Amino acid sequence: MTNRRVLLKNRPVGEPKPTDFEVVDSPVPTPKDGEILVRTVWLSLDPYMRGRMNDVKSYTAPVELGQPMVGGTVGEVVESRDAAFRPGDFVLSYGGWQAYHVAKSGGARVGPFGPLKLDPKAAPISTALGILGMPGMTAYVGLYDIGQPKPGETVVVSAAAGAVGSVVGQLAKIRGCRTVGIASSREKCEHVLKDLDFDACVSYRVPELGTVLRDACPNGIDVYFDNVGGDVLKAVLKNVNPFARIPLCGIISQYNATEMPPGPNLAPVLVNRVTIRGFIVSDHADRMPQFLADCSRWLREGKLKYREDIVEGLEKAPEAFIGLLRGRNLGKMLVKVGEDRTRR
Amino acid sequence: MTNRRVLLKNRPVGEPKPTDFEVVDSPVPTPKDGEILVRTVWLSLDPYMRGRMNDVKSYTAPVELGQPMVGGTVGEVVESRDAAFRPGDFVLSYGGWQAYHVAKSGGARVGPFGPLKLDPKAAPISTALGILGMPGMTAYVGLYDIGQPKPGETVVVSAAAGAVGSVVGQLAKIRGCRTVGIASSREKCEHVLKDLDFDACVSYRVPELGTVLRDACPNGIDVYFDNVGGDVLKAVLKNVNPFARIPLCGIISQYNATEMPPGPNLAPVLVNRVTIRGFIVSDHADRMPQFLADCSRWLREGKLKYREDIVEGLEKAPEAFIGLLRGRNLGKMLVKVGEDRTRR
Repeated sequence: MTNRRVLLKNRPVGEPKPTDFEVVDSPVPTPKDGEILVRTVWLSLDPYMRGRMNDVKSYTAPVELGQPMVGGTVGEVVESRDAAFRPGDFVLSYGGWQAYHVAKSGGARVGPFGPLKLDPKAAPISTALGILGMPGMTAYVGLYDIGQPKPGETVVVSAAAGAVGSVVGQLAKIRGCRTVGIASSREKCEHVLKDLDFDACVSYRVPELGTVLRDACPNGIDVYFDNVGGDVLKAVLKNVNPFARIPLCGIISQYNATEMPPGPNLAPVLVNRVTIRGFIVSDHADRMPQFLADCSRWLREGKLKYREDIVEGLEKAPEAFIGLLRGRNLGKMLVKVGEDRTRR
Repeated sequence: MTNRRVLLKNRPVGEPKPTDFEVVDSPVPTPKDGEILVRTVWLSLDPYMRGRMNDVKSYTAPVELGQPMVGGTVGEVVESRDAAFRPGDFVLSYGGWQAYHVAKSGGARVGPFGPLKLDPKAAPISTALGILGMPGMTAYVGLYDIGQPKPGETVVVSAAAGAVGSVVGQLAKIRGCRTVGIASSREKCEHVLKDLDFDACVSYRVPELGTVLRDACPNGIDVYFDNVGGDVLKAVLKNVNPFARIPLCGIISQYNATEMPPGPNLAPVLVNRVTIRGFIVSDHADRMPQFLADCSRWLREGKLKYREDIVEGLEKAPEAFIGLLRGRNLGKMLVKVGEDRTRR
């Protein structure tokens, strides 16, 4: 039995290349007292991982060269030296890009990831990496706590077909807002409109996004949940209403940049008394219980829907991650690393 | 008796030129029922006036060509058809760039300006345009309500020797913060340090402002009160602490720009969970009583100091205003339009 792992081989300059990763087979680790050995079933791929590949100061440490890429995982306990877990339990943990890992209560966490036991009967275990996990909670906290939309307001979200954006729009609808998505392709816009019930969706690949957005938002923009920054943010700022709120969740447009591009002119922020607020979901762990209660219920009631974009096999993770940064995924990007015995 | 007035003759392209203004002598207006005729003593010059010279949508309407420039004034009532005012009363009003104007209760206001009776014994009447007026209240609301500094935090303010910035720094000291100013000249920095008791002051005219700021703010920056935008904001963002707050009060660096320059890259806003919030003092009129109570007391107690930069004669207003936008003033920029009988 070997442990397939994907290591960071080179720090990418610009867009990551397949050769920046290395797939190796290593011995399966042995859990010590208080630890569990987990066989990974699902690996989450998320845009924030691009930042971990750089050797720069951020809110968490970078991945070291020669070490596995980090990432949230759902897996099955195969050996336990912790009385709280038994073999066959399914857990959410932060196992990284590898087939096996040891986890420990109180160990490394990012955001709402713990080594946390999952109930496969309550919801598909993969949702713990998506709509009921970090991406869903990012949407919940960013929209409701930072964006604070009121019924009847217009909420715009970029990367609208992605793991976070798709939840933002649905949460805005639940709040009674007009919901407008921004996405790359017609296929994504159709998904967002037909499956997720957004009121409108526009592609950012148009010459005059500001004008297109104005048509899609006849009453202006009250909340813009920003996943991408760049030109999309500039176009939004041309259409903001007084006292608009902009939760800044990500700047995907520049994650592969080799030099920091300039940002938007801030005159509309001043004139319209806009609030731009960066946030990181892990600061809001106290909201986890309310998020899980609300979103689990809405999921059962059919008010929240989700789509997963699944690639099979850990060795496909680098290619899928490169595609994610190019916006090629439709829904939550997952790598199926091993058999999911809960899906029959 | 004639009414000297300064009209907007041309909409400036870039920096205003003296020929964009026209000085004319007109008949003195006659107050109607409910109105007062005011002889202007002091005219306030403020950077926001540059925006009013453009024919663009903003939070208030532009000045029309051929009409007097707008502005806050302190004057003396010479004729009253309002029972609430008597000749000889001193009032704060929004009389614009002219020697006489009629004012009316409930008439045009900008920010805390009303036709408001002043008590010359309580404070010099010119302070109603400065530390006890719109600039002071801008500092008070922007720092305390938007910036929310806590004792021991580091507060940085740009245009630190100006009407707003000089108050921001002193209010931050009163709150128990480390206070760092940014100004153009050595003379301004000395004034800010020696007269206003800031802890440090740096010039933005240095090659590496980010590094200079890091040295001046060894514990990082918790609040940046931004009057200028541009490169100064970029340098500040290199030094912000997690959860820093940036009240966006003005963008003087681009008021004369013919095309909107790009803004700062927002990666530090995301990584450090920074809040950038534009504000306009007139939205916060409910804070006026508390502002006046606090700042009048601190002024009497000597905890607040101020300096006025005075030019004599209304016809000097265009030149003084052009200089204000170049940062040539030291303290609150005022035009002495007529005799101040309260100053002996």
